[in-house]
Amino acid sequence: MNELQPKPEHKFTFGLWTVGNRGRDPFGEATRPSVSPTTIVERLSKLGAYGVNLHDNDLLPIDATPAERDRIVSDFKQALDDHGMKVPMATTNLFYDPVFKDGAFTSNDRRVRVYALQKTMRSMDIGAELGAHIYVFWGGREGAECDAAKDPREALKWYRECLNFLCEYSTTNGYDYMFALEAKPNEPRGDIYLPTTGAMLGFIATLDHPEMVGVNPEVGHEQMAGLNFYHVVAQAIEAGKLFHIDLNDQKGTRFDQDLRFGSESIKNLFFLVKLLEESGYDGPRHFDAHAYRSESEEGVWEFAAGCMRNYLILKHKARQFEQDQEVQSLLAEIKDSKNSPALQPYNRTTFDSIKTLPIDRTELASKRLPYERLDQLTIDILLGIR
Amino acid sequence: MNELQPKPEHKFTFGLWTVGNRGRDPFGEATRPSVSPTTIVERLSKLGAYGVNLHDNDLLPIDATPAERDRIVSDFKQALDDHGMKVPMATTNLFYDPVFKDGAFTSNDRRVRVYALQKTMRSMDIGAELGAHIYVFWGGREGAECDAAKDPREALKWYRECLNFLCEYSTTNGYDYMFALEAKPNEPRGDIYLPTTGAMLGFIATLDHPEMVGVNPEVGHEQMAGLNFYHVVAQAIEAGKLFHIDLNDQKGTRFDQDLRFGSESIKNLFFLVKLLEESGYDGPRHFDAHAYRSESEEGVWEFAAGCMRNYLILKHKARQFEQDQEVQSLLAEIKDSKNSPALQPYNRTTFDSIKTLPIDRTELASKRLPYERLDQLTIDILLGIR
Amino acid sequence: MNELQPKPEHKFTFGLWTVGNRGRDPFGEATRPSVSPTTIVERLSKLGAYGVNLHDNDLLPIDATPAERDRIVSDFKQALDDHGMKVPMATTNLFYDPVFKDGAFTSNDRRVRVYALQKTMRSMDIGAELGAHIYVFWGGREGAECDAAKDPREALKWYRECLNFLCEYSTTNGYDYMFALEAKPNEPRGDIYLPTTGAMLGFIATLDHPEMVGVNPEVGHEQMAGLNFYHVVAQAIEAGKLFHIDLNDQKGTRFDQDLRFGSESIKNLFFLVKLLEESGYDGPRHFDAHAYRSESEEGVWEFAAGCMRNYLILKHKARQFEQDQEVQSLLAEIKDSKNSPALQPYNRTTFDSIKTLPIDRTELASKRLPYERLDQLTIDILLGIR
Amino acid sequence: MNELQPKPEHKFTFGLWTVGNRGRDPFGEATRPSVSPTTIVERLSKLGAYGVNLHDNDLLPIDATPAERDRIVSDFKQALDDHGMKVPMATTNLFYDPVFKDGAFTSNDRRVRVYALQKTMRSMDIGAELGAHIYVFWGGREGAECDAAKDPREALKWYRECLNFLCEYSTTNGYDYMFALEAKPNEPRGDIYLPTTGAMLGFIATLDHPEMVGVNPEVGHEQMAGLNFYHVVAQAIEAGKLFHIDLNDQKGTRFDQDLRFGSESIKNLFFLVKLLEESGYDGPRHFDAHAYRSESEEGVWEFAAGCMRNYLILKHKARQFEQDQEVQSLLAEIKDSKNSPALQPYNRTTFDSIKTLPIDRTELASKRLPYERLDQLTIDILLGIR
Repeated sequence: MNELQPKPEHKFTFGLWTVGNRGRDPFGEATRPSVSPTTIVERLSKLGAYGVNLHDNDLLPIDATPAERDRIVSDFKQALDDHGMKVPMATTNLFYDPVFKDGAFTSNDRRVRVYALQKTMRSMDIGAELGAHIYVFWGGREGAECDAAKDPREALKWYRECLNFLCEYSTTNGYDYMFALEAKPNEPRGDIYLPTTGAMLGFIATLDHPEMVGVNPEVGHEQMAGLNFYHVVAQAIEAGKLFHIDLNDQKGTRFDQDLRFGSESIKNLFFLVKLLEESGYDGPRHFDAHAYRSESEEGVWEFAAGCMRNYLILKHKARQFEQDQEVQSLLAEIKDSKNSPALQPYNRTTFDSIKTLPIDRTELASKRLPYERLDQLTIDILLGIR
Repeated sequence: MNELQPKPEHKFTFGLWTVGNRGRDPFGEATRPSVSPTTIVERLSKLGAYGVNLHDNDLLPIDATPAERDRIVSDFKQALDDHGMKVPMATTNLFYDPVFKDGAFTSNDRRVRVYALQKTMRSMDIGAELGAHIYVFWGGREGAECDAAKDPREALKWYRECLNFLCEYSTTNGYDYMFALEAKPNEPRGDIYLPTTGAMLGFIATLDHPEMVGVNPEVGHEQMAGLNFYHVVAQAIEAGKLFHIDLNDQKGTRFDQDLRFGSESIKNLFFLVKLLEESGYDGPRHFDAHAYRSESEEGVWEFAAGCMRNYLILKHKARQFEQDQEVQSLLAEIKDSKNSPALQPYNRTTFDSIKTLPIDRTELASKRLPYERLDQLTIDILLGIR
Repeated sequence: MNELQPKPEHKFTFGLWTVGNRGRDPFGEATRPSVSPTTIVERLSKLGAYGVNLHDNDLLPIDATPAERDRIVSDFKQALDDHGMKVPMATTNLFYDPVFKDGAFTSNDRRVRVYALQKTMRSMDIGAELGAHIYVFWGGREGAECDAAKDPREALKWYRECLNFLCEYSTTNGYDYMFALEAKPNEPRGDIYLPTTGAMLGFIATLDHPEMVGVNPEVGHEQMAGLNFYHVVAQAIEAGKLFHIDLNDQKGTRFDQDLRFGSESIKNLFFLVKLLEESGYDGPRHFDAHAYRSESEEGVWEFAAGCMRNYLILKHKARQFEQDQEVQSLLAEIKDSKNSPALQPYNRTTFDSIKTLPIDRTELASKRLPYERLDQLTIDILLGIR
Repeated sequence: MNELQPKPEHKFTFGLWTVGNRGRDPFGEATRPSVSPTTIVERLSKLGAYGVNLHDNDLLPIDATPAERDRIVSDFKQALDDHGMKVPMATTNLFYDPVFKDGAFTSNDRRVRVYALQKTMRSMDIGAELGAHIYVFWGGREGAECDAAKDPREALKWYRECLNFLCEYSTTNGYDYMFALEAKPNEPRGDIYLPTTGAMLGFIATLDHPEMVGVNPEVGHEQMAGLNFYHVVAQAIEAGKLFHIDLNDQKGTRFDQDLRFGSESIKNLFFLVKLLEESGYDGPRHFDAHAYRSESEEGVWEFAAGCMRNYLILKHKARQFEQDQEVQSLLAEIKDSKNSPALQPYNRTTFDSIKTLPIDRTELASKRLPYERLDQLTIDILLGIR
């Protein structure tokens, strides 16, 4: 099926760290060799991807000299040009080095917060040089195990100050970045502050420049809190705040797994893809996932192809759902509210008329809601039986 | 210890539905007789509570005539007066009747949404008559099992329209209500929209009158999503949005249990009480909990006394923690950031000076963070060993 | 597709309580009228089911006189005969009545334990009269909220004594029942004893007649503990202990939802159905699920049809998986262990030869394991793309 | 308080890998230097521990030559002697090396299974040489992400064959080991086979030598599945199968955290300690935990001291609970079952007499169960208020 062939217009992107993942985990050593950024660019381009995203240290050693930095960035730009690949998003590694052991923007030590800002400014410079317009913040170490040691109200003030600082840095430099905040409930910290996309939306409303800041929801991160990812993304879109998205998959409320997109939560991700496609979201479809640790390098490219393939299969099925006559007829029946009064304008006349409206509660309660049928039609479409 | 004696100044409140809970559950019949609202007022007053809160139908049958309504409300006010009890908060039952089987403000049927508004306006009138200044919204049925049947973006628009409508209704009637939104991730619905307090904070920013609307976090509801309740409430307080709070307890990420406050999550609730007391929050300490189903009526009052007792014990320990010299000395050491540059004003000079500041990452990383000791001191204080 | 048509040979059964579920939940009233047992028998028969299962009180009021009992049982048998339906399994309601508020076989009050035995013996008599050969034990109230009140070691001894008692009762009466123990981690109790199928398997080994006792795993119950249901059932089958199975579905680790089989956990239930079909399990495929609470009675039959349909779709796909040449070729490659020594007999010669065998660890580690490809083929088959 | 001073008679042990943990995690580098096994022995001895436990590779590099092996083991024995420390338990590292990327005893490649046996035999030899009588099996890699690749029934057969093999190896060599199987539901694998202690108990019943094999439950591992650890251990003890125990703590159903014992689940671990002390369990109290990653080496010893301290505090409180008159009086009331018939012998006479016994269900249901009071007394004792 031609529509299952990934093309740059689909805006599929991968992090350098995703296909570059070497399979290290808390109980085991790396199982795969590293893959160079330029090889990643080449291979992903051949598979039909639109671009790659990166943390500063995916490309540059943390101690790179200016000369090394310039050489590496230049080589990488060449590879991007050679293969027609973009870097739509950049971000900072504020979690790997021991200096961040108790947080970056929320470290109890202000000197660490200053270092985190320095590192982020430098990384934003590189991102801008590579053409990125989205800058992601994942505060993996912004949290606590020992709540006695840090007042979360203070931590949030520090976090806010850093984001306000960086918004101004972006504007001052003419970078035109949209900031996308990425939530995660825990791991590697016992608890991470602002643990859900919802919490991030609430936090954004308290920033100096809320219009510059949106969210970057990740499938598995919300599922770690047992949340319905489709609902999470719908809230972000409805609020005009979906600036980026991290697609992967997860086996329920446990450790972060970053599985191949569409390999587990088939039904929920069907609704997600349907939502993304129907909402007019035109940002990257970024895969923040990695191959099974047991996989060889060859399998990494199978994995990458599978992420895109599953997105396109679900997109195809979303269209089928929209065109299914029985589905549409059931939806029309369900949503029919007969004659019912307008709620606006909000004034005393409306209030009075609604407050005194005769309503037959029992009759309303008896309305048929054929959701079992509708859900089974969905399953039939998903399983290719219809 | 006198400080463990509940007094009205502590602002302890209970819902009529909490001590009135009859022990019905999905697999079993009620095990206790009903207790009348006036008896509840009397008994709670004797235990030292400040007031009671209610849903409209905790007091009034859903089909009460105007005459019945007036008589019941009048008797109840008399009981409040007789015992010096307040009703600081009121709310609407938008979940029990079958009419709400697919939601109230987010029902697919606009006629149901109109009915929910009518019911809420009438309930707000009663609350105001009883002196309530806080109005809680728990949208227990605002959710879905079958995502094919409802677009959550549409549901949020309906929800918003209803809240905007009711804000205007409150203002128009001079009620001066503060609205407090209560989140829950699931149960009774497969998924509930706006599943966490964080999501509510994000939603509030999109309302017509965000200044009138805050949150009502509930211990167990956030724990059902595996979140750190102390962190959740800290975000709400820091954003100026803690308008009410539901205190209870819970055994982890499972069904909603509404256990006696302080009976399970000892350490997390210690930090919560410390936060509430130190933050200047002066609203009700509301217990939304109920006695074990195996308990007799007599035990219900033991349960109620225990909720207040545990709050006061934890408050006492919070003071002890603040006065502990070793604790304070460790905190001072942890937070010492030596000389480090200011982050403001946010301008090119600051950016440049921070971007070029020489920083010894390894030295910063080597700073001692004695959190194990600090955490053990907390445990010692909690267990009464120190 | 003819193979998607349910037939009695598929051994699909439903509990009277499942299609008879009226939609009551902890926060709401019933939304549907009751359906009589005889209507259930008739409707399910038309849909292609093999039989129905029941608790004593699904059929008989708890206070039925002997005469009522005989009349009701006789009418029910007539309905079974009229429609060619079986009752392969019976069970006891030991949870609804307040007498069981602190357990049945594990109640602290021995008089309650005696009553539970009496009720079970009488129910076993009815089950036998209806032709049941499987007797299920779901100890919904066998648990605790307050661990101070009961030593779980004591509770397990009481539980064991009751099961030993009832094994002898079955044998003495020539009933020839196979007992199937059903685990659940929590709800309605804060914690339920023997919370997983695994725990039940461990417990069975300590009974007087382990050969008479097996398990009845339920999809949602194991998922409430975040377990892989396919793995759970595989252990039971491999141990010769799968005596019955409860099929439904669930949205993750939360309250018990009893959703339509195959409506959520598509991939995991695909492996389950594949396992059941390939293992030679020839017991009932019992659906312990119910329609959405928002559903009308008409929708209940859609629900029931959907459970069976989804089983048959997954069975069809299991066959496709087995016949897929690329799948089989990958599996052959994966399982190829080349020449490797036998582990038996377990004696010094074998031990020595293995202990000293030269092994190239690095070479073994480098073996390709193309699981991403294999998993994607599975997804393609599930989604009907292959 | 003298009784809070750890002494060897308390049988506190630590794994070399626990206090030796360097703070590496999936998102970050090590934060602490290594500590040598001999230093660990010395420091733990000073703190009052009884012994240390180890994986083969905690002591020996995986590629150690026989000469290196002998020297290292000899030095380590000397340190044990010097400080009067024991090695009661040993185990095998079957998870770190890439060779185990798809399992050890359940690898699809039989050559890997053979290597795992070879490695385990050699490690058992070392353990025996060090005086260990308990041998633990934690199958961290015995699981799957891709269920298409391995039939769990087959995996269990391989697992069983390996355990049977090793039981014979132990007997043949006169080692007299008790095997203790340790369950974990997931992490590092997507799902681990035999995910709970319950599942292990069920599996043990299928082995050739069930009498040699018991369990090693770990606090956090069962909590990752949301289970009540006190109940889990009670089942193991009641079945005579508690051969070892891993003590630590955990913040709910999320990634494995190995926190300081008693730092989180205060109430549940109180019941656990009470059970261990009252049951006559006389094996090691082994701490499988590690210091926060933000901690320095100095803090590691604070952490170790805290584990033992919290155990002793809870033991002290368990005694207080047993001696509390109100507690005991409530328990006596709760357990009073008045006159009720014996259930044995299991014969027709007993069956008939119980089946026909007149029982007043309503009266039984009305019995007072003052669990709220009892639970509050427990809280008062835990918080040191009583």
